[in-house]
Amino acid sequence: MRQSKIFIPTLREQIETDSRSHGMMLRSGMIKQTAAGVYSYLPMAKKVLNNIEAIIREEMENIDSIEVQMPILQPKELWQESKRWDDYGAELMRLNDRHGRDFALGPTHEEVITSLVRDELKSYKKLPITLFQIQSKFRDEIRPRYGLLRGREFIMKDAYSFHIDEASLSETYDNMYHAYYKIFKRVGLNVRAVKADSGAIGGDYTHEFMALADIGEDTICFDPESDYAANIETAIPMNEPLSHQGEEKPLERVETPNVKKSIEVAQFLDVSIEDMSKTLVVKYEVDNELKYAMFILRGDHELNEIFAMRALNVKSIKMASEDEVKSLFGATFGSLGPVEVDHMPIYVDDAIRGHQHIATGANVDGYHYINVSIDRDIKDPIYGHYRFIQQGEYAEGSKSPVEFVEGIEVGQVFKLGTKYSSSMKAEVLNDQGRSVPMIMGCYGIGVSRTLAAVIEQHMTEDSLVWPKSITPYDVHIILPNMKDSETTQYAFELYKSLKQNGYNVLIDDRNERAGVKFNDADLIGIPLRITIGRGYKSGVVEFTNRLKLHESPEMNKQEIKIEHIVDTVKQSYE
Amino acid sequence: MRQSKIFIPTLREQIETDSRSHGMMLRSGMIKQTAAGVYSYLPMAKKVLNNIEAIIREEMENIDSIEVQMPILQPKELWQESKRWDDYGAELMRLNDRHGRDFALGPTHEEVITSLVRDELKSYKKLPITLFQIQSKFRDEIRPRYGLLRGREFIMKDAYSFHIDEASLSETYDNMYHAYYKIFKRVGLNVRAVKADSGAIGGDYTHEFMALADIGEDTICFDPESDYAANIETAIPMNEPLSHQGEEKPLERVETPNVKKSIEVAQFLDVSIEDMSKTLVVKYEVDNELKYAMFILRGDHELNEIFAMRALNVKSIKMASEDEVKSLFGATFGSLGPVEVDHMPIYVDDAIRGHQHIATGANVDGYHYINVSIDRDIKDPIYGHYRFIQQGEYAEGSKSPVEFVEGIEVGQVFKLGTKYSSSMKAEVLNDQGRSVPMIMGCYGIGVSRTLAAVIEQHMTEDSLVWPKSITPYDVHIILPNMKDSETTQYAFELYKSLKQNGYNVLIDDRNERAGVKFNDADLIGIPLRITIGRGYKSGVVEFTNRLKLHESPEMNKQEIKIEHIVDTVKQSYE
Repeated sequence: MRQSKIFIPTLREQIETDSRSHGMMLRSGMIKQTAAGVYSYLPMAKKVLNNIEAIIREEMENIDSIEVQMPILQPKELWQESKRWDDYGAELMRLNDRHGRDFALGPTHEEVITSLVRDELKSYKKLPITLFQIQSKFRDEIRPRYGLLRGREFIMKDAYSFHIDEASLSETYDNMYHAYYKIFKRVGLNVRAVKADSGAIGGDYTHEFMALADIGEDTICFDPESDYAANIETAIPMNEPLSHQGEEKPLERVETPNVKKSIEVAQFLDVSIEDMSKTLVVKYEVDNELKYAMFILRGDHELNEIFAMRALNVKSIKMASEDEVKSLFGATFGSLGPVEVDHMPIYVDDAIRGHQHIATGANVDGYHYINVSIDRDIKDPIYGHYRFIQQGEYAEGSKSPVEFVEGIEVGQVFKLGTKYSSSMKAEVLNDQGRSVPMIMGCYGIGVSRTLAAVIEQHMTEDSLVWPKSITPYDVHIILPNMKDSETTQYAFELYKSLKQNGYNVLIDDRNERAGVKFNDADLIGIPLRITIGRGYKSGVVEFTNRLKLHESPEMNKQEIKIEHIVDTVKQSYE
Repeated sequence: MRQSKIFIPTLREQIETDSRSHGMMLRSGMIKQTAAGVYSYLPMAKKVLNNIEAIIREEMENIDSIEVQMPILQPKELWQESKRWDDYGAELMRLNDRHGRDFALGPTHEEVITSLVRDELKSYKKLPITLFQIQSKFRDEIRPRYGLLRGREFIMKDAYSFHIDEASLSETYDNMYHAYYKIFKRVGLNVRAVKADSGAIGGDYTHEFMALADIGEDTICFDPESDYAANIETAIPMNEPLSHQGEEKPLERVETPNVKKSIEVAQFLDVSIEDMSKTLVVKYEVDNELKYAMFILRGDHELNEIFAMRALNVKSIKMASEDEVKSLFGATFGSLGPVEVDHMPIYVDDAIRGHQHIATGANVDGYHYINVSIDRDIKDPIYGHYRFIQQGEYAEGSKSPVEFVEGIEVGQVFKLGTKYSSSMKAEVLNDQGRSVPMIMGCYGIGVSRTLAAVIEQHMTEDSLVWPKSITPYDVHIILPNMKDSETTQYAFELYKSLKQNGYNVLIDDRNERAGVKFNDADLIGIPLRITIGRGYKSGVVEFTNRLKLHESPEMNKQEIKIEHIVDTVKQSYE
């Protein structure tokens, strides 16, 4: 392809953005924002997306996952059957048609696929079946950011499987899991599958595929010496036994003027942070009734709301407001504590289980208790794990202390169970002739996210090198001087000859200065570069294998004899 | 692919639908309706769509049209710049995001592409450029029908080109025109390019590509002896000179009780329909002022509203209501006429130009004039062509009398001019350094419509045969008896061997009766069929080349020796 015919509006300068890949995509003329979180994919990005999608299609077909295309417009009635019309909230984009009927723009397709399959499949003999699609999805993020990483319109591969039993689901789940690893490996992405929380979709068993990257919106906690890896939200910390417990001492109330935060109070009281507590009051609803609960953590620990929700058996919690705690305890944040509290349940984190001389707020502003012995001074403490793990701790399942890395979620596999098939009555006759809900799995890949994640992993400050498997072009021919008719003529001959050998070639035939061309080429990211310049007269061209630049600087600007250049390209792609 | 793993929910019976292709797509398990005009594409349809899209991509790249992907969500502000936010009406699907901002779901992308290009291209040196995408589009049709032919969510290829001058636009327009012919030919569609009206998008010069089909929503008028073809809406009729004019006679008012329609009045008056007129009163607005005009046609002719709008130089007209004509003329429909009318302009169709004894209504209920001489009795008649052509007439540009066929519009090419670039200020510097609006073209292919049109042209009542170029699979292996382990084993060997030879093969490995399998295979439409049945024991299989069935019945169920079957497939695909 002649570069003069393509639309690659590169930018000359660095720009300030909220993520590396976002900046690179704007600078290299790959995307353009149309509205917040809504982008156009320009020619280079579109080519890479097509390549990523082709790899996904291949790997899906290899595991008998069949492609379909479901509509973006989804009628309200289907979403009411699954109860998600109300549950999904403001992220679901909704509209009316000209007759006033309600539709959603699909963020996922569980409802549509379940209705499709339930109407057509009536017997277990037709199971299992797995269907997938690649399509634009919509989620009205409250704060779209990081370019393609958190957009409102984005490209997803979503697959759904239907089964008669758990064993069949597990088989497809495992196939999908391995296919995902292959896909991410093939597109050049370094990923790690981690156990994750199932969140709003429902179901119990799920893994996320995380691409390691500084911008990661998620923190992964992994064991450097074993396979263990988990989203930090799901990692259960293993607590070391409490040291220096000694004898219980009498409970004592002390004045703590003008200190609020746990760490400040600990310093003021001259106790270690391990002997200081943190009191949190959450509110939640059960059968429309407002309730409160207290969580007591070690002073330097953070509440994991997913664990808290699980303990309370609810789907959402909020922190109580200053006014609420004032009216509940007569004291404000920073002075709250569990002693003498009997009007709400008290959840105490395992990290301080049985602690005998911890400090807590006294429920009087400006006062704390010291020497609190939890089992003596707190009414019915409910122990459990309610906090985030910290780096350097063991997790349940790890063989050594865990480390943290940041990651971008690029895929997720999910055992849905019968959540949708039960509520939407997607039933088949089993081998006993009895009608039973199908068991489902669902499996997503963020295609546009994958593109951004690949860029995060394959860029430096001013340049990008596409993995061979998804590069928009294989070879980039640069003509530093378009006015030299001799080199220009040769360049187009080489262009044709490489194309005849099956390579996709981009030739920079623009009337631009050499410097502009090289800068653009660094951003455009084609792995192999052939520069046809002054050396042509002495029978050589300049060849750069950018994929190997980090291995050896000799790969930069090698002089290759004209008669060997096609072979050199072939060898580089072997 | 094993058919047991695919989702092809065929129906056993004929079903009543509003078009052949719609019925076939439902029966063959290709689509399923999710809402009115909103469909899911099931595996067979999706495979064919992918094949059609691949052909489109190839032909687009051959003419340096570059792929992008623009968003479905389009902000109101862009549509206000082009004034289409108000002009587009109820077909534009609209929604608010969580912050209350207005968006449209793209029915076309002129606004987005113009804003994209205007922000990045500043010089004529970067022109021409042509960008295309393949994507789901949305149009809230008031009456979705004919399955994919008139849906509300549908797949389009849309391309847009940008130029510094008309010559460059014409070159790209011609390239696109020829690429469209190639695309339709390659996908197996019999199309005819016809001149068309430019409609709401704007611009002057446009061709529609019409696939001939009984269901055609459009009527094409063509000359069997020349290249001439036009949408009937744009065909200008050539009128034969009036015969037997003779002498003028005195105007005479006669009673015509209980007859209203032109044909009834003509019979009552005992005049031929050629000597009877038809009076139509239309209303329209100019600068918010309501106006009326009268159109006089021959009794058996029909008003072409596009011509009427052009004559009045307005974008929309309506027929005056019964109440309106009553108050304007003191008479009602069926008794209206142009004699003595001086309070509105009178447009007289060329077919009756200078007619000297035509009959008209008398503007008194139950009375008509006879012997009206148009130039004598009508005040300032404005002659022109205001009617639809009829079959058997010459059209302006035709070499012989035209014939009519029904067609489905599958593509359109359009010279947009500066409609969008002017209103949206998409300007570049020309070679004089002056800022000028870019000149644009736009080019659409209805991808899902093309799929339906191919089916219309390649189906019979109970069967379908895909063109080779887009068939979902090349070969269909049928196993009538899955219980016979010998034939089953051989079938899978043949399956592998054909796959190794590069063919896509579907093998019907379902536990179904032979009759069900053959019925389904007729609907699924794979061109080559190999049935492995009882003949296997004597070394033969049954081979059907369904592409040639209409040529010679011997192509049905030929017995082919096992050792020759792979070669037979190869020969059939040569």
